[in-house]
Amino acid sequence: MNRVSEFQWISDYLAPLAGTTSFGLKDDAATLTVADGHDLVVTQDTIAEGVHFLTSDPLDTVAQKALRVNVSDIIAKGAAPFAYSMSLGMPDKWRDADMALFCKGLARDQAHYGMTLNGGDTYRSSQKLSISITMFGSVPKGRYVSRLGAQVGDAIFISGSIGNAALGLQFADGRLAVDAKTDAELIDWYRVPKPPFGLETAIAQFASASMDVSDGFLGDLRKLCSASQVAADVEMMNIPTTPSVQAMLQRDGELQKLVWGGGDDYQCLMTVPDKHVEHFRAEVQKTGHVVTQLGKICEGEAGLVSITVNGVPSSSEVESFTHF
Amino acid sequence: MNRVSEFQWISDYLAPLAGTTSFGLKDDAATLTVADGHDLVVTQDTIAEGVHFLTSDPLDTVAQKALRVNVSDIIAKGAAPFAYSMSLGMPDKWRDADMALFCKGLARDQAHYGMTLNGGDTYRSSQKLSISITMFGSVPKGRYVSRLGAQVGDAIFISGSIGNAALGLQFADGRLAVDAKTDAELIDWYRVPKPPFGLETAIAQFASASMDVSDGFLGDLRKLCSASQVAADVEMMNIPTTPSVQAMLQRDGELQKLVWGGGDDYQCLMTVPDKHVEHFRAEVQKTGHVVTQLGKICEGEAGLVSITVNGVPSSSEVESFTHF
Repeated sequence: MNRVSEFQWISDYLAPLAGTTSFGLKDDAATLTVADGHDLVVTQDTIAEGVHFLTSDPLDTVAQKALRVNVSDIIAKGAAPFAYSMSLGMPDKWRDADMALFCKGLARDQAHYGMTLNGGDTYRSSQKLSISITMFGSVPKGRYVSRLGAQVGDAIFISGSIGNAALGLQFADGRLAVDAKTDAELIDWYRVPKPPFGLETAIAQFASASMDVSDGFLGDLRKLCSASQVAADVEMMNIPTTPSVQAMLQRDGELQKLVWGGGDDYQCLMTVPDKHVEHFRAEVQKTGHVVTQLGKICEGEAGLVSITVNGVPSSSEVESFTHF
Repeated sequence: MNRVSEFQWISDYLAPLAGTTSFGLKDDAATLTVADGHDLVVTQDTIAEGVHFLTSDPLDTVAQKALRVNVSDIIAKGAAPFAYSMSLGMPDKWRDADMALFCKGLARDQAHYGMTLNGGDTYRSSQKLSISITMFGSVPKGRYVSRLGAQVGDAIFISGSIGNAALGLQFADGRLAVDAKTDAELIDWYRVPKPPFGLETAIAQFASASMDVSDGFLGDLRKLCSASQVAADVEMMNIPTTPSVQAMLQRDGELQKLVWGGGDDYQCLMTVPDKHVEHFRAEVQKTGHVVTQLGKICEGEAGLVSITVNGVPSSSEVESFTHF
């Protein structure tokens, strides 16, 4: 590798993204402080070429995805993101234009979410592109929301819509195609997750448990129930979907499984005690986001999710939806 | 990938390494607090197979290296490590025994450094092994030591010994061999860096600038000088080396360049104001570590390092040692 160009890239492209406590990325580390009355929340997720994104995805959207898969974790905990560090493994073939486009995506999302880069490292290898982000969020003291706190009787909510990205992947790798507009819309959902930024305030105030949905809705609900030692009843037809996804489901009912279990949604799955549901809805409304109630937490075997489809109990096994 | 075994591995091997604020790794994130009167220090370094370690390196030492290349950054800032998060990209071929051996190395070093695992993620790919560690350290408030603070007249110190790992790599990949004992000793230096744990107290109290030496001593000194906008004079024969390295240098003087610029040392390079040198040495002595003075910070072009070899000015260019 050519270290001179690596140093040049750091000063040309990464240093402008740096926060004030990171010495313009000239140091090996940085200090980090959280506002008074707040707790620091940390999460780390890596995305790797061929595993979490496609080689054909544009590099600015890859950068956005690397950030957003972490943003969804921070928001789900009731926290607001404010800084991140990044370890960037670049393939040997990367050139100036690749680095520039990638950093354009970082800059775009930094502005959108109000974050700065506070450190990390870069290296080159013969391997594929790999981006490991550690993200830092701030939550009012004691308000961190884990996935372990769901109680029997709590309402189960999901933010936004589900299934866009799982169908989008089918479009992105050429397995599905409809028309230019639909194709582009669904591919964009796959490439650039849209976590419900702003919803963290309502979550911190009213949710008993919360997590982001990344591995498929049904499997993730099962994990939340398992961690909370409870069971759940959900009506699958309540799952919120966009008009494009609805149109796809009209054509091919089999795609339903991809919506329920395909993953890459990066929405928030939340449980809210009955007594807080009204306040929760009111707080959510202020943010402009949409949440949909899907069912209730109930007694039963820890992690067991019983589903109905149009009110009819379904024997579909949750497990089977997590392995697409 | 088989997600069931991934979850099983997390609960079997990683959860036992987790700290108390990380929900037994059952949640997507964790909170992090630093002791009263301290600042939080963050660093992130990735090591990738074929770039930072060899495919033939045992997995427990790979885990230790992944931690220690971060420990050296934390110590160099005057901080003590206390937690880390890890993103682990495992090759498809990893089996139970691989995960067990890798985590044995993590456990060993966690105990040694007094750290716990506080989160991260795992994924499988067809790619090579890649470990991205974000490490958290604690430094007395306002005592963080950057590489930007060196002043004209400061003494330049290096901890431990230099060159073992750079020669060790030659042994590890079969380019050099002496005898079983020497080979094993030098290979171990390459595989398991030995950052000067405990030296952080002396650094925080007395150093004006500090960084870890990972890319070769001369190149890294040049970076420190460049960041501090100063120059340096150093006597290269003062560079501390182990008896094994000295014996190698007797055989082949050309290896000197590898010692000066080969990298992978993970020792601390520090500058100390003249008036603190005596106190610094006294504090270091308490820790059992050894530091060696190599020269002085001086006026001159920022980043310019002038070297003497046995008192004779050398025209060797610093730049040339950073590209091995």
